Amino acid sequence: MVKTIEWIDGKVRMLDQSRLPREVVYVDCPDYQTVAEGIKRLWIRGAPAIGIAAAMGIALGAQELKAKDFEGFMKGLEPVFNTLLSTRPTAVNIQWAVERTKRLLSGKRGLSAAELKALLIEEANNVLKEDIEVNRTIGRWGARFIKDGDTVITHCNAGSLATGGYGTATGPIRAAVEQGKKIQVIADETRPVLQGCRLTAWELMEDNIPVTLITDNAAGALLRKGEINLAIVGTDRTAANGDVANKIGTYSLAVLCKENGVPFYVAAPLSSIDFSISSGEQIPIEERGPEEVTHIFGCHIAPEGVKVRNLAFDVTPAKYITGIITEKGVFRPEDLHKLNEKDIDLEAIRMKT
Amino acid sequence: MVKTIEWIDGKVRMLDQSRLPREVVYVDCPDYQTVAEGIKRLWIRGAPAIGIAAAMGIALGAQELKAKDFEGFMKGLEPVFNTLLSTRPTAVNIQWAVERTKRLLSGKRGLSAAELKALLIEEANNVLKEDIEVNRTIGRWGARFIKDGDTVITHCNAGSLATGGYGTATGPIRAAVEQGKKIQVIADETRPVLQGCRLTAWELMEDNIPVTLITDNAAGALLRKGEINLAIVGTDRTAANGDVANKIGTYSLAVLCKENGVPFYVAAPLSSIDFSISSGEQIPIEERGPEEVTHIFGCHIAPEGVKVRNLAFDVTPAKYITGIITEKGVFRPEDLHKLNEKDIDLEAIRMKT
Repeated sequence: MVKTIEWIDGKVRMLDQSRLPREVVYVDCPDYQTVAEGIKRLWIRGAPAIGIAAAMGIALGAQELKAKDFEGFMKGLEPVFNTLLSTRPTAVNIQWAVERTKRLLSGKRGLSAAELKALLIEEANNVLKEDIEVNRTIGRWGARFIKDGDTVITHCNAGSLATGGYGTATGPIRAAVEQGKKIQVIADETRPVLQGCRLTAWELMEDNIPVTLITDNAAGALLRKGEINLAIVGTDRTAANGDVANKIGTYSLAVLCKENGVPFYVAAPLSSIDFSISSGEQIPIEERGPEEVTHIFGCHIAPEGVKVRNLAFDVTPAKYITGIITEKGVFRPEDLHKLNEKDIDLEAIRMKT
Repeated sequence: MVKTIEWIDGKVRMLDQSRLPREVVYVDCPDYQTVAEGIKRLWIRGAPAIGIAAAMGIALGAQELKAKDFEGFMKGLEPVFNTLLSTRPTAVNIQWAVERTKRLLSGKRGLSAAELKALLIEEANNVLKEDIEVNRTIGRWGARFIKDGDTVITHCNAGSLATGGYGTATGPIRAAVEQGKKIQVIADETRPVLQGCRLTAWELMEDNIPVTLITDNAAGALLRKGEINLAIVGTDRTAANGDVANKIGTYSLAVLCKENGVPFYVAAPLSSIDFSISSGEQIPIEERGPEEVTHIFGCHIAPEGVKVRNLAFDVTPAKYITGIITEKGVFRPEDLHKLNEKDIDLEAIRMKT
């Protein structure tokens, strides 16, 4: 599996995904500002991966601090937090990484600045390791819903590249393959940034998992022909009511699945579930510049000066979603909020295959 | 308005739409084989436009015939018909042009070869002129369903470029603008060949009609936000039961419109309605090579060697269609077959606004 991001020699090394599959280039970020730039410019993308990048960016920012005491250290981290939080509004994982760091540090007032710096590097590496473990667990739960011979469609990239490794939406796919199920994947290209084409198809080919590339427009026709058995996608932020924000076009795919009686699953690590908001309507949706639509790899494809609307994400209401695959099991979207309750009997609300 | 195709100095001049909007290049086709190549390679596309191209190709093929008598002349036309018919299977308009020619010639056994040749040039020019007139009439009927202030979404290009001029789906849009209604158009880019981006946005900008370009993936989100009032698309072939074959992605858009209570209209000149087939399932769907998906303007965007499925069209079942806009009026899809009956009272079945 490709290494999306790692902490190496006091720097954050990330694969520049904006150049894939034409070039495989790693960027060594020497400071948190470069990490933030990488998140903004899509060198790294995918909610879990940018959560990891944020944790590593925080650790990197901490190393530069001159503060000697705890208060000064915390104050010094503020601009690091704010810079990272301002990069991309839709994914909840940056916020999750910041809050996790604050929670961790709040119990460590007694440590020296040097100890705090070491702790944040350790924590960033923990976030990475835990993410891969979470994805493997998501994979095991989700694979129960994939039968031998199935064709799975996925949208955008919620694969190894979107995570520390293994992938959220690709987790169940990889697990099913490891279990010996003969399955195939349909990757829609996912305009405008083509993550399905450039990233998902690429990483599945690298791992010899059978994949067919289609345009986003072709998904509906194949669903209607009965050629697709289920859909699994990732999420940038899921609300407590099971509404899912994900890459633009997810809503369309979900509606088309429902219309054709095809189950639609969302692979959502708990880090991407925002229990603080009650509905998807409260999720901020990033709108990006026109160039992603008018240019592809620098090639100008649109009429000069055309007006463009470039929504990066959409919200899929819970009613279109069959199940949400987490590291705790697969749940109906209407049961999702219960995961935030104390003493919940998980087995009672887990979906059975 | 741009001239898509014309008969000029004994040649067929067509605008090479595959190069738009980067280059505006006209190709002079000296023989019917070049016309057929142009249809295959998408120099010209759009059901009505390739109907006109077929009529002009037939006229061009006829000029080369050495036959002196009627039987020889008809025999000589066979390879011309077959070459043109073999270019693209989904649009019915090539077949329509061939049958129209045969019908015309069947009443002209008395004419000399020279007279037949002249007749076919005249006929090709008639097909072009009639097409523009049909589109203007479609425009007038369809504009009744567009209100002042509306936002109209269209898919692919069923504009001037897809026809002799004025456009089928753009007919009602142009007519509404001429009536002084302030409307705006959303053009989805229409992967893989990007006709919405390269052609529809371009031709509407040329004519100062407000247009916004989006990716195909963004249509659903905008429909759900209530930002779109109606959809109008074209068709390559419509069956007697009102099922519509059109550019891949039309089905998805229609489902999303229905799900969001947005009316979905199809602009269909009678030449694109195939009363000989009872359902859309009988329409042959062209599958094209992978390059349209893996390359854009020669730029390789996909992983090397990826498997691709490239359906060029899909079928939208009649149940998703609000109305079919023809030159005889706007009809519910379930009433469409009545247009083929004798002595039908059109006014009784026309949709009222």
